[in-house]
Amino acid sequence: MNRLYHFPLSPFCRKVRLSLAEKKIEVELVEERYWEPDADFLRRNPAGKVPILKLNGHTYSDSTAICEMLEELHPTPALLPRDANDRYEVRRLVAWFDGKFHDEVTSKLLMERVYRKVMGLGYPDSKNVKQGLKAIKYHLDYMAWLLDQRRWLAGDSMSLADFTAAAHLSSLDYVSDVDWNRSEAVKDWYAKIKSRPAFRSILADQIPGNLPSRQYADLDF
Amino acid sequence: MNRLYHFPLSPFCRKVRLSLAEKKIEVELVEERYWEPDADFLRRNPAGKVPILKLNGHTYSDSTAICEMLEELHPTPALLPRDANDRYEVRRLVAWFDGKFHDEVTSKLLMERVYRKVMGLGYPDSKNVKQGLKAIKYHLDYMAWLLDQRRWLAGDSMSLADFTAAAHLSSLDYVSDVDWNRSEAVKDWYAKIKSRPAFRSILADQIPGNLPSRQYADLDF
Repeated sequence: MNRLYHFPLSPFCRKVRLSLAEKKIEVELVEERYWEPDADFLRRNPAGKVPILKLNGHTYSDSTAICEMLEELHPTPALLPRDANDRYEVRRLVAWFDGKFHDEVTSKLLMERVYRKVMGLGYPDSKNVKQGLKAIKYHLDYMAWLLDQRRWLAGDSMSLADFTAAAHLSSLDYVSDVDWNRSEAVKDWYAKIKSRPAFRSILADQIPGNLPSRQYADLDF
Repeated sequence: MNRLYHFPLSPFCRKVRLSLAEKKIEVELVEERYWEPDADFLRRNPAGKVPILKLNGHTYSDSTAICEMLEELHPTPALLPRDANDRYEVRRLVAWFDGKFHDEVTSKLLMERVYRKVMGLGYPDSKNVKQGLKAIKYHLDYMAWLLDQRRWLAGDSMSLADFTAAAHLSSLDYVSDVDWNRSEAVKDWYAKIKSRPAFRSILADQIPGNLPSRQYADLDF
């Protein structure tokens, strides 16, 4: 049985879910409250993090290593371009969103607004929320600048860079933290991604006690 | 002119330096005090981090994206194996050392013992140092467990996983934070890596005001 152990709003899990769905690899989704690690979960993944993918008898961890493996074993449709410099640009942006964007934005907003509550850690820290809301503007402007020169974030084809960015923005959109009016280009880009069949499962996510924002699942937002 | 903008003890820069040297790609090393960003440096890299590689007219950032690009454009000698599952294992371990090991060990020890001083941020925080010294034991044991089953960390060939781990351990060895007596297997593994020609430039690193540990450059440590 192929399975993905995940947490619904985790952008790292969403990146893998989008890759799997785009490549039409069916897996059972198993929700894992990874901050309450049990012995079984730690045996699956000594890093104690989600996502964990069980596929064809192998166990895989680390979202980027998983996506590279999926690309090599299931190359169609391609989420990395063919040219080495174009592939570099995709990987740079994947690292940008999972590293810098996550540190400056996702971790500040999602951690404060959702995870603290779900993990029982108390009220949001307004300083972090404020920093996150300030930083996301700069990142949306950077995306708009990229999309001014390219059809997709890393070039003229949709790639893992778009899925990575959309994974973070969709999680933030769940808690209404994305100002879609800031850039027409970013909004148009997200509308294209959001309407893909691969996105459906993500738009159906629900965290008990945290309803999604009104526009979250709306394709015409 | 091919150049690598770097900071001598940065494990991310060391990983790239080792890849470049192993593949015999010559670059001029330019030391960058990246925490004092100037306009020129930020133009080279909007993420404001080292390493930045200028190679054949292109500018590259993000150490892992750089190493993947080097692998694709300069495939010999190979630092990634051929089989997709073996490549996955290398990438998982690269992410392990640059993520979990860095968060739990390198950032706690190197940041406190060297960076604070160099950056003018004051004295080490002993709580962080204590946590780092505790966590490194667990990681050395994990490496010993891997090396009990394999010749190199990710399999039977030397790979980017070994260079990534050695990049972190060598930076920590500079400040004497690696207990080489903990595991014979890890010590033997590091001795093999340390004696490679690619390692020479790293063993010659010097941070003004912070002399390396006695065994740092000693091949027979």
